[in-house]
Amino acid sequence: MNYQEFFRSELDGLRAEGNYREFAELERRRGQFPQANCYNGPGTVTVWCSNDYLGMGQHPAVLEAMHDALDTTGAGAGGTRNISGTTHAHVQLEAELADLHGKQSALLFTSGYVSNWAALGTLASRIPGLVVLSDALNHASMIEGIRHSRAQKVIWKHNDLTDLEAKLAALPANAPKMIAFESVYSMDGDIAPIKEICDLADKYGAMTYLDEVHAVGLYGPRGGGIAEREGLMDRLTVIEGTLGKAFGVMGGYIAASTELCDFVRSFASGFIFTTALPPCVAAGAAAAVRHLKHSSEERSQQQARVAEVRARLDAIGLPHIENPSHIIPVMVGDPVKCKYISDVLMRDHGIYIQPINYPTVPKGTERLRITPSPVHSAEDVERLIGALEKLWAQCQLARLPIAAQ
Amino acid sequence: MNYQEFFRSELDGLRAEGNYREFAELERRRGQFPQANCYNGPGTVTVWCSNDYLGMGQHPAVLEAMHDALDTTGAGAGGTRNISGTTHAHVQLEAELADLHGKQSALLFTSGYVSNWAALGTLASRIPGLVVLSDALNHASMIEGIRHSRAQKVIWKHNDLTDLEAKLAALPANAPKMIAFESVYSMDGDIAPIKEICDLADKYGAMTYLDEVHAVGLYGPRGGGIAEREGLMDRLTVIEGTLGKAFGVMGGYIAASTELCDFVRSFASGFIFTTALPPCVAAGAAAAVRHLKHSSEERSQQQARVAEVRARLDAIGLPHIENPSHIIPVMVGDPVKCKYISDVLMRDHGIYIQPINYPTVPKGTERLRITPSPVHSAEDVERLIGALEKLWAQCQLARLPIAAQ
Ligand SMILES: Cc1ncc(COP(=O)(O)O)c(C=O)c1O
Ligand SMILES: Cc1ncc(COP(=O)(O)O)c(C=O)c1O
Repeated sequence: MNYQEFFRSELDGLRAEGNYREFAELERRRGQFPQANCYNGPGTVTVWCSNDYLGMGQHPAVLEAMHDALDTTGAGAGGTRNISGTTHAHVQLEAELADLHGKQSALLFTSGYVSNWAALGTLASRIPGLVVLSDALNHASMIEGIRHSRAQKVIWKHNDLTDLEAKLAALPANAPKMIAFESVYSMDGDIAPIKEICDLADKYGAMTYLDEVHAVGLYGPRGGGIAEREGLMDRLTVIEGTLGKAFGVMGGYIAASTELCDFVRSFASGFIFTTALPPCVAAGAAAAVRHLKHSSEERSQQQARVAEVRARLDAIGLPHIENPSHIIPVMVGDPVKCKYISDVLMRDHGIYIQPINYPTVPKGTERLRITPSPVHSAEDVERLIGALEKLWAQCQLARLPIAAQ
Repeated sequence: MNYQEFFRSELDGLRAEGNYREFAELERRRGQFPQANCYNGPGTVTVWCSNDYLGMGQHPAVLEAMHDALDTTGAGAGGTRNISGTTHAHVQLEAELADLHGKQSALLFTSGYVSNWAALGTLASRIPGLVVLSDALNHASMIEGIRHSRAQKVIWKHNDLTDLEAKLAALPANAPKMIAFESVYSMDGDIAPIKEICDLADKYGAMTYLDEVHAVGLYGPRGGGIAEREGLMDRLTVIEGTLGKAFGVMGGYIAASTELCDFVRSFASGFIFTTALPPCVAAGAAAAVRHLKHSSEERSQQQARVAEVRARLDAIGLPHIENPSHIIPVMVGDPVKCKYISDVLMRDHGIYIQPINYPTVPKGTERLRITPSPVHSAEDVERLIGALEKLWAQCQLARLPIAAQ
């Protein structure tokens, strides 16, 4: 087999479909974000698609904690958690996260991806006979973890309680079960009916595993996520989150009972056999978590900004998915057009919104995913709306009848 | 099922076996490493088991690069590589790594674990009919990647060319094949016959995938690893490495042809669906790579320190695995004794060497894995040898006849 030829033809296939990805090469400017320098673009751009949802990646408390940790302890952890890589910063961050979610314990991973993959993979492969009931739109990291476990997997229709109950009822009453789902779904921005899912879990003796990656820091009085906002944290067996989005740094975690965390800690290959996060990353994340426990300013500013962008889009009839979260998916529905719009936004308007194409979203639902944040100014919004309006006309894309909004 | 009960009993099982892990909680002191503060131990300890093999985690060039990146760009990347998370620092680091290994391209991952898991998983699942020939002692991250791919896997005896050839010859001549192996095996410290493996790969039309995680930065005139030292880099299809050990920070990568890297970039779930490394981490790692391309001082100091510790162990008859690398496994062969020795070293001597037990090594081969580095002083060595000698006598552990050394 000619391996190089094979790679080339697969890549050509992606290109032909319009699904070949080109990465914008950015350099943020601390204190000026969402402004960034785009090396392979027109110079300065305004970033409208970051998952640093609250701008914590440039918050002075976070940066100070990272500088301090570098000064006191140095760069990396120098080992796996078991072999010299557990530092005071890791232990403190785990305590901060357990407290955030009202759980006995928390366990850190190198990313949210690894936390889902390793925790679900370990629980589902090690609990004899466990059946995982997985929401149809779960994130790749959950899917891969479940797949990896080779446990029995039952997919239920996205956010559909009737389907979930039917699938629970069809399983043997005494089979161990785990319902895996997300709170805020990142591409559509819709939110799961957590309470009702917990009710079903109780009724059928299932554990619950909730990914709050797009909610931690953003919802709830202390930033504990949707489950905190709705007073449901104690009803979830596992809450999983990231330190790389609203908390602005990097890393992932689960929060759960001491036994469950200790079990995953002791058996998860993806936890055990990898270098721990650098102490400065752990320290920065802990500072962000701590700050957002006490300050709601960033959350309310973000929500105001989101409402404003939505109202402005409605006013010009641009189709976006209505949802109760901070994510605004403006629908294009074609990968080539979606990329084209994004390219022109960047080139002519200095606005960076990555086109979201397959495999991140299903084919035919290509979109611009806009994430307004407290760091976007009124003028940024003005320029965004102006540019989108112009482009929608240029590309002759469908608009909604404005009266119907 | 009572889930909590299940977790508890599994943990009790580990405890009964002596395989329950307790993490030492450390805080390094920049500039004073290998000295660190141990929060759940006796205060100041000397770390003898770090994989920050050259002390680059406290190198001024690395720390300066990280401080600078924090000041210029802030904390996290704020997105996946595709969605706003590719920064100039990532692109520069990838160029630095491609150059290090003499390859067209390199691709960054959040860790060495993820690079193996995602690259092997993607190649093996996406190349139709690929058979992976995997060394029996490959690292967990490679095993999990291959397992995840569900490709056909053939395990060959560790470092055994005859067995590898027999297994290659038994496969259909036209089946696509990949030989996956490591250069320095981290627990025994032995080194693979890379040239002969490449010869077999050529003879049977196989790709080669080499994990140089415990060799990059440490071997070769520019720190390119064993393959660089032996002039073999161009014969390997993929070279994989970490930024978390000799380079002192965090992250992982593959270096290979442009097409192969682009293929993995385009299809690997573990690359696509996760927040990118913080720019400061990428900048720190790039500084370490750059420094070790030009400076061999750290490497030669490390080698001298390793030789010294080996000679001193021989002089007192302590059994350690002879190998041509920088890793010194002192054999104990019992998990309970191994942990006991480690505990007493810590408590009475302020020496921290994590016991290495199952599942990191096979049962019955429990050991103290010692990693001397340029940052260990002559006095540190003195104290280490004195403490080990005393303990070996106390525990009545076997010694080798000193004359036979
Ligand atoms: C729902 C969900 N879970 C998990 C992850 C992974 O988190 P991380 O970026 O920290 O790896 C992501 C996105 O990256 C996500 O969207
Ligand atoms: C051989 C080998 N490969 C890969 C890894 C994973 O690298 P990282 O620590 O960067 O995840 C390790 C150890 O952690 C290893 O020993």
